[in-house]
Amino acid sequence: MSDSAYAAAGVNLDDADEAKLLIRDAVRSTHTAQVLGGMGGFGGLFAIGELPERDPVLVSSIDGVGTKLKIAFALDCHESVGADLVAHCVNDILVCGARPLFFLDYLALGTMNAAQVGAVVRGVAAGCRAVGCALIGGETAAMPGFYPVGEYDLAGSITGVVARDRIITGAAIQPGDVVIGFPSAGLHTNGYSLARRIFAEVDLHEYVPELGRTLGDELLQPHRCYYDAVWPLLDAGLVTGMAHITGGGLVDNLPRVLPANVAVTLDAHQWDVLPIFRLIQLQGDVNWDEMARVFNLGLGYVLTCRPDAAERVLALVGQHGARQVGAVRERTGDEPQIRVEGLGSVAG
Amino acid sequence: MSDSAYAAAGVNLDDADEAKLLIRDAVRSTHTAQVLGGMGGFGGLFAIGELPERDPVLVSSIDGVGTKLKIAFALDCHESVGADLVAHCVNDILVCGARPLFFLDYLALGTMNAAQVGAVVRGVAAGCRAVGCALIGGETAAMPGFYPVGEYDLAGSITGVVARDRIITGAAIQPGDVVIGFPSAGLHTNGYSLARRIFAEVDLHEYVPELGRTLGDELLQPHRCYYDAVWPLLDAGLVTGMAHITGGGLVDNLPRVLPANVAVTLDAHQWDVLPIFRLIQLQGDVNWDEMARVFNLGLGYVLTCRPDAAERVLALVGQHGARQVGAVRERTGDEPQIRVEGLGSVAG
Repeated sequence: MSDSAYAAAGVNLDDADEAKLLIRDAVRSTHTAQVLGGMGGFGGLFAIGELPERDPVLVSSIDGVGTKLKIAFALDCHESVGADLVAHCVNDILVCGARPLFFLDYLALGTMNAAQVGAVVRGVAAGCRAVGCALIGGETAAMPGFYPVGEYDLAGSITGVVARDRIITGAAIQPGDVVIGFPSAGLHTNGYSLARRIFAEVDLHEYVPELGRTLGDELLQPHRCYYDAVWPLLDAGLVTGMAHITGGGLVDNLPRVLPANVAVTLDAHQWDVLPIFRLIQLQGDVNWDEMARVFNLGLGYVLTCRPDAAERVLALVGQHGARQVGAVRERTGDEPQIRVEGLGSVAG
Repeated sequence: MSDSAYAAAGVNLDDADEAKLLIRDAVRSTHTAQVLGGMGGFGGLFAIGELPERDPVLVSSIDGVGTKLKIAFALDCHESVGADLVAHCVNDILVCGARPLFFLDYLALGTMNAAQVGAVVRGVAAGCRAVGCALIGGETAAMPGFYPVGEYDLAGSITGVVARDRIITGAAIQPGDVVIGFPSAGLHTNGYSLARRIFAEVDLHEYVPELGRTLGDELLQPHRCYYDAVWPLLDAGLVTGMAHITGGGLVDNLPRVLPANVAVTLDAHQWDVLPIFRLIQLQGDVNWDEMARVFNLGLGYVLTCRPDAAERVLALVGQHGARQVGAVRERTGDEPQIRVEGLGSVAG
C-alpha cells in the first residue's frame, strides 16, 4: 500500500508498527512468571492460580498524569511522566494494603511518533520493574485533530492483590493514633493547572535560586512511589490507615479514610513544606487553606499507627524521611476532620 | 472557600463533587457480590476467592473510543460512547475466552461538566450491566487547556477471567476450519479519522438516503458487544480461534490469531458490507485494499471452528446474524495470511 488515505488523515499504521518494535523490549523486561503469552494479543494474560494471599481481593485503580504533561511537552522529556503514572497508581492501591500485579497504559497522541511513544513506555516499564509489576498491555492510539502534533494524553490502570483480612480501610483508626508522613518530591501529579497559571510568564529553563534548579526540572520531579518504604510496615501489621495525597491535597485525601468519629491535626513544622509550594503560594498569592486543598505541600503519603507502634514504625521508615507529623483525636460535633497548623509560619 | 485560584485556573472541585453524586447510582447498579466497599476509595476492590474457573488466568485490556468522540461532541450526545468503550473492551478479552469481571474508566475533560460526566458514566455503567461486569473505579480529571471546553477523552480498562485450559489463542486453528463472521453495527470505534476527513463537508444532521438515517446517527451507531452471542460457543468448546475487528480492520486483526502455516480467504458476498462503508469508499475514493485495513467492513467479530462443528455453531449464533464468511486453508510460502475476495463487486 502506498501513501494511503488513512495516512493523509493523520494515521500512519507503519509508524505504529515501528513504535511497537521500539517498546517491545521495555515491555518484556517487566514480565514475571505469571504473564502468559507475548505482546500483540487483544488482552494481556496474568495467571493467578498460585497467589500466596489467602482469600485474595484484587484492588484496581486507573489514573492519568494530568496537565504535568504540558511540562513534559515543553521540555521534550517524556520518560519521567511514564514512571510518574505508575508511581501514582501503585500508591493508590497501596493505600488498601495491596501489592501490584499488573499494569496497562493508554497513550493517545496527535500524531504517532515512535520515539515519543518509546520514551513514555520505557518510563512506564521502569516504574513497573521497580515494584515487580508486569506491564501486560496497552493501547497506543493516533488521534489526529484531537491532540496537537507532539502532544498526547497518558493514562494507566493497575491491578494488585491483598488478602481479605489484610485490607486496610482506615476503619481501625482511633483517637490517639499517631500520623506519620512521607516526604513528596514536589507536586507529584497534582495541582499543575494552578501552578502553570501562576508560572505562565516564567521560562521553564530559568534557574530559580529558591529551588536550586530550573523551574522545568522542579515541575518534572518524579512522583514518588511509596511501595518499598511502606511494605515492611504492612507485613508487620503496624498500620491502621493510609492516604495517598493526590488531587484534593492534604485536606481532601486524609479524611477519605478517617472514621466519622475522629479528626486529625497536622503540624506543618514537623515536615518540609518544600520551597516550590512556598514559591507558588507567594507568586500566586494563594491562601494556605486553598494550598492545602490542592497540593500535597511536601507530604506525598500519610499513614496512621497506634502510639505504642510509632517507635517501631519510625525505625523502619525513618530512612525514607518519614516523620511523625500529627495525631488523631476525638472529633467534636461536625468539625472538619483535618486541621493543618503552622502553614502560615513555615512560609516565612 | 470562595472563588478560588484553582477554580480560576479552570479546575472547580465543587463541580467535581456534583459529578460524583450524579454517577453514584449508575456505578452502584453494576456492583456484584464480589465488589467490596463503596466509591471514594483510592482503589476498587474485587474479591476473587471463589472464582469458579480452575487455575484462573486474568485477562486485561485497555482502550479508548478514538475520534468517534468528535461525533459525540458535535451531536452533544455522550451516553453511547460510554457503552461503546465497554463493548470494545469486552470483545477484546472475549477473544481469549475470558468473561468480564470488572471495569474502570478514565475521563479527562477540558472543563468539569457534571451533566456530561453523568451521561458518559451512565453509558459505561449500562455497558457493564449488560455483561455482568462491575464498574469498580474511575478517574474523572479536569485538564483545562488540554481539551477544549465541552470536549474530553475517554479510556477504560477491563479485567476478566478464563480457566487456563480454556484460553483461546488461535493455535488450534487448522486448514479446513470454517470462518464465521458476526455483523457489525457500523464503524464501531475505528477508522473515524479517515471517515471524518471524507465527510468533513457533510452536515452530520443531514439525512442520507443510502444509510436510511442521518450521517451523525450512522457514525454514532453503537459498538456491538459479542459476549452474549459468543459465550454459548465457548461453553460448548466449539471455537478454535477468534478475532475482534478493530484498528487495522479485517486484514490486520484476523492474522493476529492465525498460526503461521494457515491463511484465510473471506468472501465478501457472504456478509453485508454495510452501506456506510460503500459510501466511504465511493466518497473518499479509497481503494478496497485500504478499506479492509482500516474498517471492519460489516464484520465486527470473527471466529473459526472445525468444519464438522459449523452446523452446530450456526444453529447457536444464527439468531445474531452470524454466517459462514470464509475458510482456513494451508498457507503457501509467505503469502499474506488473509485475502478478502469480492469487495469490488459488492460495491456496485
